[in-house]
Amino acid sequence: MTLSLNQWTTRRWTVREAVDGCARHGVEAIGLWRQNVAEQGLAESVRLVRDAGLRVSSLCRGGFLTGGDALDDNRRAIDEAAALNASCLVMVVGGLPGVVPGEPLGEISRDLPAARARVAESLQVLAPYAAEAGVRLALEPLHPVYCADRAVLSTLKQANDLAEPFGNVGVVVDTFHVWWDPEVLAEIARAKIFSYQVCDFLVPLPADVLLGRGMMGDGVIDFGPLTEAVRKAGYDGDIEVEIFNADVWARDPDEVMAEMVSRYARWIEPTPGLPG
Amino acid sequence: MTLSLNQWTTRRWTVREAVDGCARHGVEAIGLWRQNVAEQGLAESVRLVRDAGLRVSSLCRGGFLTGGDALDDNRRAIDEAAALNASCLVMVVGGLPGVVPGEPLGEISRDLPAARARVAESLQVLAPYAAEAGVRLALEPLHPVYCADRAVLSTLKQANDLAEPFGNVGVVVDTFHVWWDPEVLAEIARAKIFSYQVCDFLVPLPADVLLGRGMMGDGVIDFGPLTEAVRKAGYDGDIEVEIFNADVWARDPDEVMAEMVSRYARWIEPTPGLPG
Repeated sequence: MTLSLNQWTTRRWTVREAVDGCARHGVEAIGLWRQNVAEQGLAESVRLVRDAGLRVSSLCRGGFLTGGDALDDNRRAIDEAAALNASCLVMVVGGLPGVVPGEPLGEISRDLPAARARVAESLQVLAPYAAEAGVRLALEPLHPVYCADRAVLSTLKQANDLAEPFGNVGVVVDTFHVWWDPEVLAEIARAKIFSYQVCDFLVPLPADVLLGRGMMGDGVIDFGPLTEAVRKAGYDGDIEVEIFNADVWARDPDEVMAEMVSRYARWIEPTPGLPG
Repeated sequence: MTLSLNQWTTRRWTVREAVDGCARHGVEAIGLWRQNVAEQGLAESVRLVRDAGLRVSSLCRGGFLTGGDALDDNRRAIDEAAALNASCLVMVVGGLPGVVPGEPLGEISRDLPAARARVAESLQVLAPYAAEAGVRLALEPLHPVYCADRAVLSTLKQANDLAEPFGNVGVVVDTFHVWWDPEVLAEIARAKIFSYQVCDFLVPLPADVLLGRGMMGDGVIDFGPLTEAVRKAGYDGDIEVEIFNADVWARDPDEVMAEMVSRYARWIEPTPGLPG
């Protein structure tokens, strides 16, 4: 298990700049975002990470399965993950139909169980397609505060239950989303973990709750027990630092990377069972 | 089951004004807050609700058990609930030790399981005291977004498990806090429900997430299935409308009450099994 840069931690950087940043800071893996890959060009992105010898710890993101037909776009995302040899494609499943993040409510569906059922149905189609392509799908339960607008998948238990029937479907454990859950350690123990993402939960939250993700140590999360449980569950992949935060995004990305490396060494690496 | 005004929906009003408002709008029950009762005077508040023939559907609130010693203050809250003949004392259990709502983080404890254990220990002391006084304690699980600063009790399952050993300890089901929970209907079915509170979950949330509670119909909650489950679980007490919302608080409280009555008739009363 070693540190990986999720590219939105240094959001201003292109794929090329983020790959160069990893080399400068001794980071061996990177989590990429589809829109940044599209801007750089897929073939060029593949070449950049390969030439730099970087592992692609995840591609963010497929999903948004609860609204209109999203299957074609998800098939494209799977193809991109295959081309990049990404360890997994992160799936953010979408909120209630009609709810648009950040927009006032218009015509929406309030039928939460139906939206959840739609996610399960979509997986029946996408999991075999991904298996053909040699791609693993990582379902990401999001904090319940995002249930209406971003992901009706709200607990690790739900994600584990959905992933169970498929060999190539697992979960993302993201500390920000799961730290509060009374069942989290038991659910980590039974999880097929395809990605482990860390960042802190800021209190008080900023006005836009999407940007409440802070550097490790700046919030309320006790990282040791979570990281230890992930390790004990058998996960030995990369640990992505993924921070959405207006202050972090405003800073020089090189400074952000240096801080990320030192925070990781202080808050994550000392965990028993981790090489570090 | 009939409509009750939680007094913070008309926050500007004193106990006397809220009691008069209930009479004007045909509302038969009221949920009171301790600080408002203290301002009005306890004996005077008792007299006002008795003379108006109002039921006191709850007293808000005891709790905040995770920080320093809160037992004496909770004993006083229990005594007040007894004097008011409140149907229950609502318990908001408190967040991580050292975290102050709305304040930047200082020295805090990140040990969430320890904070949760402290709640269980405090109940061992407070439940018998309340039983002596003839008072029922209603544990309120709060939305996980408040886990750090207001309540480490984050799911109805946790609250049910904590309440189980005590005859006079039950739960509050508040739609705002539980609507997202994949287990909510099963947990309502097994709950000792002492209070049912309704309001909507606004999307997007306002800058202060505490004030994200809206009038029924203004947010994303599907009230029918929740209200039906509460009814089927055997609850036949009052249904409190409790709204924390800067826009609602800025309006004429009489207008707010009129709207509350009509929203209740539209969104809550048509539920199968409810008299209405």
